[in-house]
Amino acid sequence: MKTCIATVSISGDFSEKLAAIADAGFDGIEIFEQDFISFDLSPSDVSKMVRDHGLDIMLFQPFRDFEGLPEGPLRRRSFTRAERKFELMNQLGTELMLVCSSVHPESLGGIDRCAEDFAELGDIARGFGVRVGYEALAWGRQIHDHRDAWEVVRRADHECIGLILDSFHSLSRGIDPESIRRIPGDKIFFVQLADAPLIEMDFLFWSRHFRNMPGEGDLDLPAFMKAVMATDYKGPISLEIFNDQFRRGNAPLVANDGHRSLINLMDSVRRDLGENAGAVAAQLPRLPDKAKISDVAFIEFATRPEEREGFEDLFRHLGFQLTGHHKTKAVSRWQQGGLNLLVDTEPTGYAAEAVAEHGTTVTDIGFVVDDAAAAHARALALGAANFVQTVAEGEAQIPTIKGVGHSVIRLIDPGMDIWRSDFVDTGTADAPALMSHIDHIAQTMGYDEMLSWALFYTTIFDTLKSPLFDVVDPDGLIKSQVIRTEDRVLHLTLNGSDAPYTRASQFLSSVRGPAVQHIAFATNDIFALAERLRNLEFEILPQTRNYYDDVLARFDLDLDFLERLKAHNIMYDEDETGRYLQLFSRTIDNGLFFEFVQRESGYTGFGAPNAPFRLAAQRRAAERTPIPAAG
Amino acid sequence: MKTCIATVSISGDFSEKLAAIADAGFDGIEIFEQDFISFDLSPSDVSKMVRDHGLDIMLFQPFRDFEGLPEGPLRRRSFTRAERKFELMNQLGTELMLVCSSVHPESLGGIDRCAEDFAELGDIARGFGVRVGYEALAWGRQIHDHRDAWEVVRRADHECIGLILDSFHSLSRGIDPESIRRIPGDKIFFVQLADAPLIEMDFLFWSRHFRNMPGEGDLDLPAFMKAVMATDYKGPISLEIFNDQFRRGNAPLVANDGHRSLINLMDSVRRDLGENAGAVAAQLPRLPDKAKISDVAFIEFATRPEEREGFEDLFRHLGFQLTGHHKTKAVSRWQQGGLNLLVDTEPTGYAAEAVAEHGTTVTDIGFVVDDAAAAHARALALGAANFVQTVAEGEAQIPTIKGVGHSVIRLIDPGMDIWRSDFVDTGTADAPALMSHIDHIAQTMGYDEMLSWALFYTTIFDTLKSPLFDVVDPDGLIKSQVIRTEDRVLHLTLNGSDAPYTRASQFLSSVRGPAVQHIAFATNDIFALAERLRNLEFEILPQTRNYYDDVLARFDLDLDFLERLKAHNIMYDEDETGRYLQLFSRTIDNGLFFEFVQRESGYTGFGAPNAPFRLAAQRRAAERTPIPAAG
Repeated sequence: MKTCIATVSISGDFSEKLAAIADAGFDGIEIFEQDFISFDLSPSDVSKMVRDHGLDIMLFQPFRDFEGLPEGPLRRRSFTRAERKFELMNQLGTELMLVCSSVHPESLGGIDRCAEDFAELGDIARGFGVRVGYEALAWGRQIHDHRDAWEVVRRADHECIGLILDSFHSLSRGIDPESIRRIPGDKIFFVQLADAPLIEMDFLFWSRHFRNMPGEGDLDLPAFMKAVMATDYKGPISLEIFNDQFRRGNAPLVANDGHRSLINLMDSVRRDLGENAGAVAAQLPRLPDKAKISDVAFIEFATRPEEREGFEDLFRHLGFQLTGHHKTKAVSRWQQGGLNLLVDTEPTGYAAEAVAEHGTTVTDIGFVVDDAAAAHARALALGAANFVQTVAEGEAQIPTIKGVGHSVIRLIDPGMDIWRSDFVDTGTADAPALMSHIDHIAQTMGYDEMLSWALFYTTIFDTLKSPLFDVVDPDGLIKSQVIRTEDRVLHLTLNGSDAPYTRASQFLSSVRGPAVQHIAFATNDIFALAERLRNLEFEILPQTRNYYDDVLARFDLDLDFLERLKAHNIMYDEDETGRYLQLFSRTIDNGLFFEFVQRESGYTGFGAPNAPFRLAAQRRAAERTPIPAAG
Repeated sequence: MKTCIATVSISGDFSEKLAAIADAGFDGIEIFEQDFISFDLSPSDVSKMVRDHGLDIMLFQPFRDFEGLPEGPLRRRSFTRAERKFELMNQLGTELMLVCSSVHPESLGGIDRCAEDFAELGDIARGFGVRVGYEALAWGRQIHDHRDAWEVVRRADHECIGLILDSFHSLSRGIDPESIRRIPGDKIFFVQLADAPLIEMDFLFWSRHFRNMPGEGDLDLPAFMKAVMATDYKGPISLEIFNDQFRRGNAPLVANDGHRSLINLMDSVRRDLGENAGAVAAQLPRLPDKAKISDVAFIEFATRPEEREGFEDLFRHLGFQLTGHHKTKAVSRWQQGGLNLLVDTEPTGYAAEAVAEHGTTVTDIGFVVDDAAAAHARALALGAANFVQTVAEGEAQIPTIKGVGHSVIRLIDPGMDIWRSDFVDTGTADAPALMSHIDHIAQTMGYDEMLSWALFYTTIFDTLKSPLFDVVDPDGLIKSQVIRTEDRVLHLTLNGSDAPYTRASQFLSSVRGPAVQHIAFATNDIFALAERLRNLEFEILPQTRNYYDDVLARFDLDLDFLERLKAHNIMYDEDETGRYLQLFSRTIDNGLFFEFVQRESGYTGFGAPNAPFRLAAQRRAAERTPIPAAG
């Protein structure tokens, strides 16, 4: 299978786009004409430059407003224009042009008129040794359905005229992709893919601003591709993404995400189709299954040696007990229930570098997965960055990939006992546990990175994502998305904001980069926990009386219970299935904080109605106690 | 007329919102309940704080999912909830609550059922001395049309139950505002206004993210308000704006824009209605007419004394002649055709401060208006900032307001001869003029400021605005909007980008704030001008050969003409009515550049198809010659 991407999907000038596309592993490009025109090299030099990057020019696009014009100068002009572009294509060394359906105000339409136009164009194209593919734009004036475009192509009946399919144009209009199955694969000249979030809006506006990579949106790309594979289509699979974020984004990151999304999509299609995957899908290298996460083995915090004591006191206050230290490194192990927190004060190495740059921060997250080596292989095949570290003899070699910001993800086999191989026991966690496991890990990142990390987690790991939702901060909106395992063993929340003064953005600027901003521990008795924390003078984020008056108005609670919530600053939510109680620490250091939650019955949310009040409380608290800057 | 704004429209915490709202001149607030709940003062303290700002709490909102529920605990809960909120309203000292139409999944609807619910609620409300207004949300489950909400209110037939109208909810659905005229004014308890750009999309998404101030969008707010005035409604006119930008924006600026938009709207409604304006509109202070701009009297550049010579050489190269100097200041006058450019090198004063902070920059734009004093009065009544400067005896006192960034706008009467009063003649502009007038002035600003400045220009001056359009820069999108007089004597283009590395954003960061980025001079003979500039070795922005090949493909041009375009790096466009030729200088200093345009026949655009290629050319040029930083 050949992979391809339109140059318009990537930011920068033509040479920057090419470099990013080649590095990401694509086989070719669709050359978006504006990118070429803007560029200061001749067509033959551009052609050479593309080949020098190991890429083919698989498509020249777009040619607009060609078909269905009335006889006369407009129609003649459109043929002359095509001829000039065929000449250019010869110089560029590309043999396929995309004609998108006309939006010209004088276009008359008519399937037969359009077919005749294409038949005539086909003869000219043959003279230049090129071919033309016709694509129905979702907002085309007469033709805006691939079934109609196919009828034009069928009636044009010309070897140089074929169809181009684009998942966005078909799926945005709700056209059943099953209708693709009746088109002969050899008449489909090219296939473009784009996903998009499902928001009802004007097709053109939606397409120009909201397209994203397969798997980043809500369209049924797998159904679309399965139908394409059924036709025995053998051409390239290409991405054509118009997206405001990608246009301004980091070119290598966007190109890498694009390649990852394509490989992941085709992998899932091949799995679903099995024997019937078709010749192209069958060529795909077989990827290991998505990794199943069954537990969080540990979370490692790195801090400065001089802050170690304070940090360990904090864990002690939270009920953790020191149970070991690393055999060769300055890393201590703190345990409670099934929880393991590590404190790393190594003076050198990646964790020390992270601390120097970002202050106290989470550097490692250990996921227990069904098969660590397979998970690692899948991650690398999907373009994740490998992370290698020398370990002492006898210590575990843990397959590791880079994660959000400066953090790494350790992939741990169920059978692997790193506590035995890497640690010396110094005690046991014998006190009654107040907390049982990690409910969720919240990572804050640039708003423009959220799609990218959601794609990372959902393609490498067997996880589901929620829709993006807005959380109201006093200084703007924060976007939030939940990634979780199907069995809800692990929830990751991704948060980002394009408003500069929200809590999320201030955290990012305070720690100089994306990082874990908070960890939520699950408890079975939040009141006992709160009581204990109060006795230890652990600082809890205070809530307003107005909040509790509102809770009383919204829910049927008895007054004693409400008073207990209020006394401990516990926030409350409920849905049809159960209750959710949550309690927040003050900001500990460098913007990091902890949450303690008690889920009852089937409650599966995260207390979203409380989030604006929590954020406002954090803002008030920050006004009183400014967060110290990193570094 | 009482003006009001919902606290949700403004960023910050409750006290910051209040301060901004009071300073902008509003009479009251709609208290958005979340803002209150987030705030750490008791209801009575909040009440006192609001009054201390000279504001009234005119509405408590929103109360959701009240009506149409089946008999049982859900319905009972919703009445209990309302009672609690009535108690709270008593403590807050506000007597009107907004109930928005239900989106509850179990709501049964039914006009009579809803009317009975409201009649029952009215009895409770009476006991608390409060009233309730019912508003149809555009996405309400059963009720999403003000005509249906009115029918509920009519049948509830209770003195404490009335209707609340919101322009967004009615106009977004295309409901004819004329239908408001049949509602009795005393049953309309409250009127909320919001505008929005006309983009077809899901109502809730549109409302939550895209609302803006009256006049900033495309909805027919005047028609809506005229219908409201016809009912003899006497209550407050309030703004309820959910907008991603405003939520993260500068609270005083957003509040000020809101007040400006309301006063401007009501002024235009009163003008249209004349005698029939109704009691409320009649109370409005009479504003002078919008100022009609007939000419650009001058543009003043401030630069450092040591850069003066080079800058004046530039003007000389462009065909300007030195014709005078200011009587008391270091300001020289350069003339050509009807054009006047001033070069200011005063060592102190606002221009010198601007240079120190921003580098060489446009500080003054002089508009010839029909009545300068009236224009000034209107601007101040609409919240524009006055600008006062001491002048020497005999020199003109020019009414002045602050404009974009550090610039000021001078308002000049047609009869005022500032050249005589303020300048000493030192020569005459006797050379043949290559340029005749200013075609457009392009100001670059933060993307979040564009709505604000468009509102500024369109409410103070008699101008029209184009829709916002996207220009593709290699590093992201730039949004652009044209403000112009009806007769096209003056065009201002506003440009902004939320992508950090576009030409617009780099200019902003280079000059440290919004400013004029380029001025386009009109010429009648662009080839003669180009020839002259070449002879003077004036640096022109080079275009690519690929660009001219594309021009040849797109338009029917003879090859000689094309060669002349190419030889001079002149860009070309045409529409049905005429041709447009444009030529760009290299970046002169500090990101500033000049454009030279020749408009033929009825061409009214700005060469938008060329803009991406111009931006790419500027990016290439900047790579070769980095723009020196300001200061």
